[in-house]
Amino acid sequence: MAESVWIDKYFKPLVQSEGAAGLTDDVASLSFDQSRIVTTDTIIENVHFLSDDPMDSVGHKIVAVNVSDIISKGAYPTEAVLNLTWNSGRKDSEIEAFATGLGRALRKHGVKLIGGDTTVHNGSIVVSMTLHGKCILDRPIRRSSGNAFDLVWVTGKIGGSGLGLQSLKGNRIYNEFVHTYRYPEPPARIIARAIADFATASMDVSDGLLLDASRIVSTSRLGVQINLENVPLAFPSEHKELILEQCTSGDDYEILFTTPKSRMVQVLECAQKDDWTATCIGTLQPKIGLRICLGDREIGLPERLGYIHHSTI
Amino acid sequence: MAESVWIDKYFKPLVQSEGAAGLTDDVASLSFDQSRIVTTDTIIENVHFLSDDPMDSVGHKIVAVNVSDIISKGAYPTEAVLNLTWNSGRKDSEIEAFATGLGRALRKHGVKLIGGDTTVHNGSIVVSMTLHGKCILDRPIRRSSGNAFDLVWVTGKIGGSGLGLQSLKGNRIYNEFVHTYRYPEPPARIIARAIADFATASMDVSDGLLLDASRIVSTSRLGVQINLENVPLAFPSEHKELILEQCTSGDDYEILFTTPKSRMVQVLECAQKDDWTATCIGTLQPKIGLRICLGDREIGLPERLGYIHHSTI
Repeated sequence: MAESVWIDKYFKPLVQSEGAAGLTDDVASLSFDQSRIVTTDTIIENVHFLSDDPMDSVGHKIVAVNVSDIISKGAYPTEAVLNLTWNSGRKDSEIEAFATGLGRALRKHGVKLIGGDTTVHNGSIVVSMTLHGKCILDRPIRRSSGNAFDLVWVTGKIGGSGLGLQSLKGNRIYNEFVHTYRYPEPPARIIARAIADFATASMDVSDGLLLDASRIVSTSRLGVQINLENVPLAFPSEHKELILEQCTSGDDYEILFTTPKSRMVQVLECAQKDDWTATCIGTLQPKIGLRICLGDREIGLPERLGYIHHSTI
Repeated sequence: MAESVWIDKYFKPLVQSEGAAGLTDDVASLSFDQSRIVTTDTIIENVHFLSDDPMDSVGHKIVAVNVSDIISKGAYPTEAVLNLTWNSGRKDSEIEAFATGLGRALRKHGVKLIGGDTTVHNGSIVVSMTLHGKCILDRPIRRSSGNAFDLVWVTGKIGGSGLGLQSLKGNRIYNEFVHTYRYPEPPARIIARAIADFATASMDVSDGLLLDASRIVSTSRLGVQINLENVPLAFPSEHKELILEQCTSGDDYEILFTTPKSRMVQVLECAQKDDWTATCIGTLQPKIGLRICLGDREIGLPERLGYIHHSTI
């Protein structure tokens, strides 16, 4: 049975809290205050990082993957707890490196570590973080609250992390993107303010731009059109195959958000003023479903819209 | 390097939040409200449970080990997030069993599941839960806030879980305690009220009664004397070896707490009224250190005060 099937079948029925949004969003609100949110992500050796990745990159990554969830909701990350399951065969210098990367990323994103649990076994390293956040508004910006004809935006650049992973697997030579794969930079805190001010819907891009674009309308009765030539690619290309690869490879940790058309200039001015980038890549549509266009023509969807993380050994 | 050494060396310096109590307590307070607390525990296949334990017991156990931390602080458990790293070779019926045990325990202890992250790999099953709680008072009852000559109490019975594990490992025949090992029952919610009303210090007993007793004075300038013949053993015995084994074997998930002497009758009456047990097993002492007595005579400490969880394969 696929993971998504058993989540729907066995775990969703356990969740009855309103703030949990039926497990369909990036975060849950705590029941006593909808503006207090929590998210959690796990990364596993040989699934989300490679055994020979430097351990400071693993400490970095567990912070990055959680921070992007919080920022995408128009919220500031606040306090974290860490679950580290370490491998008993690793060197002391590697646990030191992990803590160094973790500490650096926590400081950079203004997150306080308040607790955790460390355990040791002889298997894969497994790291979870549960990160709290405080919304700028009285509740988080949800995934599916956009309206027909809203503009669809993405922050930063898309596809670099996937190319870096390809390079590490020896399939292609995109060495310049190895750093992007190992040390993904989530959106800066300042972007939370823009999301709160302008976004009608928002989520982070973690499993591939096209898959996540399909999710931003998954519980609304809307569709989304993405204009591929507008997507800010890490490796700009006019080759359809390479464009689609970057739009489906995941691990971007950027933000996909929607705004009314009337906000276009404000978004661009805000991004320029605060030194980040937002690129308009499409629109929400009344007709349900995901459509992609290249050169003003709709093209067929690729077989795989995103990257589902599986064990690589 | 031992795990406790690298926690001190690399992780404690990362924690500067006042509510984290320097990582020396069972829970951390969230910064905006000291009465809102959070705890997290991880359990790992072949470290905290056995590969052939029924999977509903694993779902049960991850709730139990976290609930005991919250109740011991004089708080009610509220909302949880779950990190499940599953093994791809397990049967569908096992994930169903896990969810069944999890759901049953969540309902029993009044905990709402609000989110989580499920991942799959080909290694050991790793389960973490981060559990929130609400203190009855304006802050949690800490570990080391007892006073000299306070009474030391423990709830429930001690040692059954360790005997159950011995049985499963084939070393001894204590079959009746296998259930205690697999399905530990944390203290009921009603006990949180008593802890808030009467306790000067409190913590849960998870790594062995004697080890945890030494911790309840670890950051105060006090000592603790435990009278072994008063400890409520799961398997009552007059043999020193069997008494010490039960007092050091861990996984009890009961509460160790202290009260002023003047509260003795009130604690006993409260427990009787609400149908739980509290047993007075010793006193806090002005002289630093852990001392144990048997038959009115102080005896030497065993080599091992508790159970440090290590991989069993």
